[in-house]
Amino acid sequence: MSTKGKVITCRAAVAWELNKPLVIEDIEVDPPKPGEVRVKILWTGVCGSDAGAMLGKFPEAHFPFVPGHEAAGVVESVGSDISEFKEGDTVVPLWLSQCEQCDFCKSPKTNVCGKLIATSKLGVMVDGTSRLRCRGKTLHTFLGVSSFSQYTVLDGSAVVKVNPSAPLDKVCLIGCGVPTGYGSAVNIAKVEKGSTCAVWGLGTIGLAAVMGCRDAGAARIIGVDVNPAKFELGKQFGVTEFINPKDHEKPVEQVILEMTGGLGCDFTFECVGNINTMKSAILGSHLMWGKSVMVGVAPGGHEIPVEYKAIWLGRSITAGLFGGYKPRDSIPKLVNQYMDKKLSVDEFVHHTRSLEKINEGLDLLKKGETLRTVIKMH
Amino acid sequence: MSTKGKVITCRAAVAWELNKPLVIEDIEVDPPKPGEVRVKILWTGVCGSDAGAMLGKFPEAHFPFVPGHEAAGVVESVGSDISEFKEGDTVVPLWLSQCEQCDFCKSPKTNVCGKLIATSKLGVMVDGTSRLRCRGKTLHTFLGVSSFSQYTVLDGSAVVKVNPSAPLDKVCLIGCGVPTGYGSAVNIAKVEKGSTCAVWGLGTIGLAAVMGCRDAGAARIIGVDVNPAKFELGKQFGVTEFINPKDHEKPVEQVILEMTGGLGCDFTFECVGNINTMKSAILGSHLMWGKSVMVGVAPGGHEIPVEYKAIWLGRSITAGLFGGYKPRDSIPKLVNQYMDKKLSVDEFVHHTRSLEKINEGLDLLKKGETLRTVIKMH
Repeated sequence: MSTKGKVITCRAAVAWELNKPLVIEDIEVDPPKPGEVRVKILWTGVCGSDAGAMLGKFPEAHFPFVPGHEAAGVVESVGSDISEFKEGDTVVPLWLSQCEQCDFCKSPKTNVCGKLIATSKLGVMVDGTSRLRCRGKTLHTFLGVSSFSQYTVLDGSAVVKVNPSAPLDKVCLIGCGVPTGYGSAVNIAKVEKGSTCAVWGLGTIGLAAVMGCRDAGAARIIGVDVNPAKFELGKQFGVTEFINPKDHEKPVEQVILEMTGGLGCDFTFECVGNINTMKSAILGSHLMWGKSVMVGVAPGGHEIPVEYKAIWLGRSITAGLFGGYKPRDSIPKLVNQYMDKKLSVDEFVHHTRSLEKINEGLDLLKKGETLRTVIKMH
Repeated sequence: MSTKGKVITCRAAVAWELNKPLVIEDIEVDPPKPGEVRVKILWTGVCGSDAGAMLGKFPEAHFPFVPGHEAAGVVESVGSDISEFKEGDTVVPLWLSQCEQCDFCKSPKTNVCGKLIATSKLGVMVDGTSRLRCRGKTLHTFLGVSSFSQYTVLDGSAVVKVNPSAPLDKVCLIGCGVPTGYGSAVNIAKVEKGSTCAVWGLGTIGLAAVMGCRDAGAARIIGVDVNPAKFELGKQFGVTEFINPKDHEKPVEQVILEMTGGLGCDFTFECVGNINTMKSAILGSHLMWGKSVMVGVAPGGHEIPVEYKAIWLGRSITAGLFGGYKPRDSIPKLVNQYMDKKLSVDEFVHHTRSLEKINEGLDLLKKGETLRTVIKMH
C-alpha cells in the first residue's frame, strides 16, 4: 500500500536535549510539499558534526532535532512540482544544496548554494516549517537532512540521484566525509605532484584529505594525531610520516619545520576544528608559499591566533565546505569513481550498527575507535 | 679622479636614535668587497617603511642606521668578482634580493630570495659587517639598501640595471612603492575583469594597488581612508567609490557589505599595516570567494583578530612582499612599461626635496600631505 501523500510513522533517533544520548522514537514524517522529496533512508554515517551538534558546538543545531546528514536511500514520494525525481530513485541527500538557480550556483567560484543557507541554519525547510514531529512536538531538521530517521523530507535542491547499483552502506560516506577531506586536497588546496603535505587529525575527513594528497601525487604526507594507532591506520590512506604531539615538548609546527629543512610543508590541512591546531597548520606550512586549508569546523567566538608576520612572505589561509565540490554535479561522478575503484571508500567503514544502537556509533567516534560507523536504517 | 677602491666620504641622513629626526652627516662608505657593488644614489623616495623603522615599528631597524630603500642611481665601482655591472650603469637597488642561485630564486612559487634574508634583517652585509661609518661608529644598513646616503654598497644580488634613459626621479619609485601595490593586485590577488575591489589606505602602496585593480579590469574600486582628500586624489588612479570610516558609526566592512548586495568584494587589499584594518579587509571580502591580500606591514606581537567562521565558506587570506615580483626579472620590464606609458609613476611624486631637507619629506608623509617625496641626493 503506497504511503504517498500520507504521514509516515517511522523510527528515528532524536536529540531532545543538549549533551544527552539520542532517544529512539516513533516519529511522524509529513508528505513532501511542492519542491520537496521524501526519502527512505537506507544507510547513514555517524559524522563528527552530528556529535558536535549534540554537544551544542554548532549554532545550526536547534533542540529537539533529528541529527544525521551523511546518508543514502531511495525516493519514497515527491512533491507536486518535482519532475527530476520519482519513487524508487537511488539518492544521496545533500547537506549543502545546489539549486542551480541562485547567483552562487551559477558562479564557478563557489560551491555554496544560497537557497537553503538561511533556513537550514534554523533547522527548518525553506518555507520555515518542519515535516518531522514526535510526541506532539515539532522536531527541527539538521543541516536540512536529518538522516537519523527512517524517512526524511528534503528540499529538491538537496538531493541527487546516484548509480542504483552502488552499495549504499558505503556510498552514504560520499554524502559528507570522503568528499570533504578529499576535495580539500584536490580542489581547494590543489595539491601538486611531488609536494610535501601535512594533515592534522586523522579521522575520516583527515584521512580522506590524506588520500586526496596521495592521489594528487604528494611525495610526503605527514599525519598528526594524538592517537598513536592512527599511524598504522593512516598508512593505508597514504600517510608516510607521523607526529604524535604528545611525544614532543615543542609545538608540532616546530617538529614539522625540522622535518622539512626549516621551511614547512607546501600544503597543510587542519581536520580537527580547533583554533590551536589551525595555528599549528598555518605555522607548519611553507614560509613562502604554504597553503593552509582549514577543513575542521571550529566553534565561533574564538580567533585563529595568527600574526600578520606568519603570512607576510606569502603563506595563504583558506577554508571551504564539502571539499569545494558542487554537490549535485560531483556526487554522482564520485560514486562512479568509487564503483570504478578510483576512489577508496570501503576503508573508512569500520563498524555497522542498527538504528537502535546508534549511540554506540557516537561513542566509538568520540573515543576515536572508529572512522565511520554506518547505521542500517531498515 | 676615480674613487674606485677608496673610502668615499659623502653626505647621508642618519637615524641615530629611536623616534628622533634624521641627522645629515658626513659618513664614510667603504669600497665594495667581492660580490658587492657601490652605487651613487641619485634619487630616493621616502617610504612609509623608512618612517616606521625610525619609530621602531620593524625589527629590521638597528640603530644607528641609514634608512632608505627605494632609489635609483649609477654604479660607482664594483667588487673584484662582479662582471654583471660596471661603472656608470644605471641601476635600481633592491631591498628584496634575487641571487638566482638559491632554491627560492629557482622556484616560480615565490619572489623571496634566501641569500640576504638573515643578514639584511640584522642591518649588515652578507659577511656580517657594514660598509658605512660615521663619527667612528658603524652604521647599520636598512633592508640591505640605505639609500639615504649619497653612496651605498649593495650585494650584487640586490641591484639591477635599468634603461639608462629613464628619469630616475620617477623610476626610484619602481624600487618599492609602485610594484608593491600594483603587483599585489595583478600578481598576488590576480584581480579579474569586472570584479569589485576595495583598498584600505590610499597612500602610494594603496593607490598603486588601486591602479593594479584598474589595469586588471576591475569594475568597481572602493577606496577606504580617513583623509577625505584621498577620494579626489584616488580617482586619478581608479578609485570609483570612497568610504571615510569617520563618516560611519558602523564598521567599514558593514558599509562595504551594504554597497555590495550583502556579500562583499571579490578582492580586498589592506595597505595600512594595522591588524584592525586587516580584519576589516577580510570581513569586507566576498563571503564565499573573497580574496584578501595583506599588503601593509603590521608590527609583530598582535594577532589578526579573525575567527574561523569568517573564512569557512571559502574566503582566503594571503600576503606577500614586493607585489610578488621577482625584482631583478621585473624591475627592468616595469621601467620600460613606464617609459612606454603603460604604467603610471609620475602621479605618485608629489614633492621633491634636497637631502638636507629630508625630514620635511618624512613630516609630509606622516601628515598624509604627500604620496611620495623624492629626495635629490646629488
